[in-house]
Amino acid sequence: MIIVKIGGSVFSDKRGNPENFDMETVRTIAREMANFYPGEDFIVVHGGGSFGHPEAKKYGIREGLPGDWESASLKRVGFTLTHQAMLRANARFIEAFVAENLPAFSVSTSSIFITENGEVAYGDLEVIERLLELKFIPVLFGDVSLDLAKGIDILSGDQVITYLARMLQPKKVIFLMDVDGIYYGKPGEGGLIQNLSRDEIDALLEGFHCTASGTDVTGGICNKLREAKKIAGYSEVWFVNGKVPGRLSGAIRGDGFGTRVRG
Amino acid sequence: MIIVKIGGSVFSDKRGNPENFDMETVRTIAREMANFYPGEDFIVVHGGGSFGHPEAKKYGIREGLPGDWESASLKRVGFTLTHQAMLRANARFIEAFVAENLPAFSVSTSSIFITENGEVAYGDLEVIERLLELKFIPVLFGDVSLDLAKGIDILSGDQVITYLARMLQPKKVIFLMDVDGIYYGKPGEGGLIQNLSRDEIDALLEGFHCTASGTDVTGGICNKLREAKKIAGYSEVWFVNGKVPGRLSGAIRGDGFGTRVRG
Repeated sequence: MIIVKIGGSVFSDKRGNPENFDMETVRTIAREMANFYPGEDFIVVHGGGSFGHPEAKKYGIREGLPGDWESASLKRVGFTLTHQAMLRANARFIEAFVAENLPAFSVSTSSIFITENGEVAYGDLEVIERLLELKFIPVLFGDVSLDLAKGIDILSGDQVITYLARMLQPKKVIFLMDVDGIYYGKPGEGGLIQNLSRDEIDALLEGFHCTASGTDVTGGICNKLREAKKIAGYSEVWFVNGKVPGRLSGAIRGDGFGTRVRG
Repeated sequence: MIIVKIGGSVFSDKRGNPENFDMETVRTIAREMANFYPGEDFIVVHGGGSFGHPEAKKYGIREGLPGDWESASLKRVGFTLTHQAMLRANARFIEAFVAENLPAFSVSTSSIFITENGEVAYGDLEVIERLLELKFIPVLFGDVSLDLAKGIDILSGDQVITYLARMLQPKKVIFLMDVDGIYYGKPGEGGLIQNLSRDEIDALLEGFHCTASGTDVTGGICNKLREAKKIAGYSEVWFVNGKVPGRLSGAIRGDGFGTRVRG
């Protein structure tokens, strides 16, 4: 089984119109997966792009549920509207996958996960496991979450993937990005890292000046590397360009162009 | 806590255009609930109406997943399209409730329930219970389901409610219908039954010639009475007209017009 993460920047332009969706790119991704299905099982997790992020930011969902009734009421509305925006993104994915004859099935992240300070504290994978047995392709997404510490929070697609990888131990986790993989430094400045072993990640994090909680000046790369380090304990991890046709296929086959992280 | 079932015939005309939605009626229902919230906690479960039923029927979802790959592939697509149609109905409900300042939150039925021959075999209520604690109004719906016996099936809104009532023991379960309640015989022919005790239901089922599995000539009334009998063991049950303003309020207060079933 292979988990594919479709980053927000791959299917949507955060600086573009609200809820813009690059159907052509997603159809191409689906078509590449269709070449390996049903021989290969897949789970897909997508990010928010121009769908979830504006609402989540507008209502300050990450701040949690405040104590006074008035402010909490507004946050609850923001929480539900953020989820609905993510469902709209998700519906486009389902549409794209079905158009390529893949039985993608929507699973609402916020219906099965509960977080504690944004990390998964509880997850019910019964439906996902049964979907896989029946040869469906579960499609999850970064979403709002009920949170044991803060009342409400955001559960990122990357966190969902780390949890799924730990519980289901896929043979491969492929992160689709809008760049070719992990670079030494900022994309376009340093060279692309084509092969990385799990042991080398700590040194790399230090080189990038990534702190534990971390302000992240290199385009979210600190967080990605930290998650990759966890996942590489069970699964091979790939970072490839989701905007370039063929790159996903290469990662699925194992001879692709991008960054490969081995355990 | 009160569970409100909004029947498909209340918000949608099955013989009308595809995916027609009576926003005015649903806004009125939401407004009546808003008069009791947050003093009262609610769970809402809605049916399919012109959204889920056509797809479910077209693809024969209730027949389960067949053995041969070709037919099963088509069923999987139908399964996912039926769920997406229900999500579109659900999005309209969330829109209506939020417009009336109620923090309704969508929970995907098929993400948390697994059935066995259409009856709930597994349900994960963690998210629903936590939503209630935080004063959200969970909104579920009749949906497709993964099924231990048949692979796939349909889980009706009424079955969801029976399960929720058994697990959460609400003080009241209110079924909104497009008629005034349960009648002796067909609506419009016999008189309305205003008070019913749980013990009287078996005799009534016999009078209606309801069989155990049941062809149902009286507009689904056999099934409704059977579920009501189960639920009345823990909760007061009301059947009221969801199309007539004020009837829901009456049932919530306890002095309303319709059929009241006591344990």
